[in-house]
Amino acid sequence: MQNTKNKVEKVIMGVDPGTQVMGFGIIRVTGKETSLVLMDTLILNKYDSHALRLKKIFERSISLIEKYLPDEIALEAPFYGKNVQSMLKLGRAQGVVMAAALSRDIPVVEYSPKKVKMALTGNGNASKEQVAGMIKTLLKINILPDKLDATDAAAVAMCHYLNGFGDTPQKKYSGWKSFIKDNPGKIR
Amino acid sequence: MQNTKNKVEKVIMGVDPGTQVMGFGIIRVTGKETSLVLMDTLILNKYDSHALRLKKIFERSISLIEKYLPDEIALEAPFYGKNVQSMLKLGRAQGVVMAAALSRDIPVVEYSPKKVKMALTGNGNASKEQVAGMIKTLLKINILPDKLDATDAAAVAMCHYLNGFGDTPQKKYSGWKSFIKDNPGKIR
Repeated sequence: MQNTKNKVEKVIMGVDPGTQVMGFGIIRVTGKETSLVLMDTLILNKYDSHALRLKKIFERSISLIEKYLPDEIALEAPFYGKNVQSMLKLGRAQGVVMAAALSRDIPVVEYSPKKVKMALTGNGNASKEQVAGMIKTLLKINILPDKLDATDAAAVAMCHYLNGFGDTPQKKYSGWKSFIKDNPGKIR
Repeated sequence: MQNTKNKVEKVIMGVDPGTQVMGFGIIRVTGKETSLVLMDTLILNKYDSHALRLKKIFERSISLIEKYLPDEIALEAPFYGKNVQSMLKLGRAQGVVMAAALSRDIPVVEYSPKKVKMALTGNGNASKEQVAGMIKTLLKINILPDKLDATDAAAVAMCHYLNGFGDTPQKKYSGWKSFIKDNPGKIR
């Protein structure tokens, strides 16, 4: 999408999926300017059932997509975890977000936590607080949210911008229609 | 749904999710009669990218749901696997099926492989071939499909019927709307 001054304008939704807390961060990029649209968390650990959590993740993802119409979705996705049980649950949460995005034909791009930290701070082992500090500076905001899951989500959106909108993403998941065209056997 | 003779009629779609091959089996239950509607597999290992596999899973799930209008979906879901990587991928595949089902308000019920084998053969450690043999007998079919993933999927659908349509399911995931009513804190 381009505005009248011929600057590229994009809305990027960053998601930090988790089964306890899910972070969402939406940024608007206009040319080389970035601004924050929304940082929010979906608290899931108050729900007993994993099923209800998946339902809430799906609903919130769809509702944010319909309200803010992101052009692309950037997902923070670790590839290793503590144990198989938690990875199965995390995989389900990611799968639900992906299905929500891809059912609306929005490309999904994945970044590892290390890649996000590197893009934001120049250090792949930076703390969540350092990442949050950079979000505050880059997006020119005064107050950070309580939950670092929200800043993490904004960070993955920023990471996607700083990586040239996924020109060299770690993993790229295109929308249903554009997938094959955009990703000829790139992703494994 | 009830037919004119007041017998309960239900269409159950069984899914055996995998990242290499996905099995689908649809049965129709009319009173105490069961019949096979469809057994099929979605071959995924011909696609390079995991992203494309998820896309294909989503599309096939939605297309089968729209064509056969299942009342309930039964999912074969192992809870442990070889390693965290494969469990993350399997979780994503499951999450995509769940989102497809639940976005159409179809309840999803999970059964472990052991529970499926037990329901079909009376032996929780039965082989896939033994399960396939029982599917042949119970559904009165002459020829089995090449892939046991298809019979496995029909088996999980049959398991759901044999378990009284999930009166005592291992894990039950209801449709978006009916979730809270049907599952007051039962599933964790």
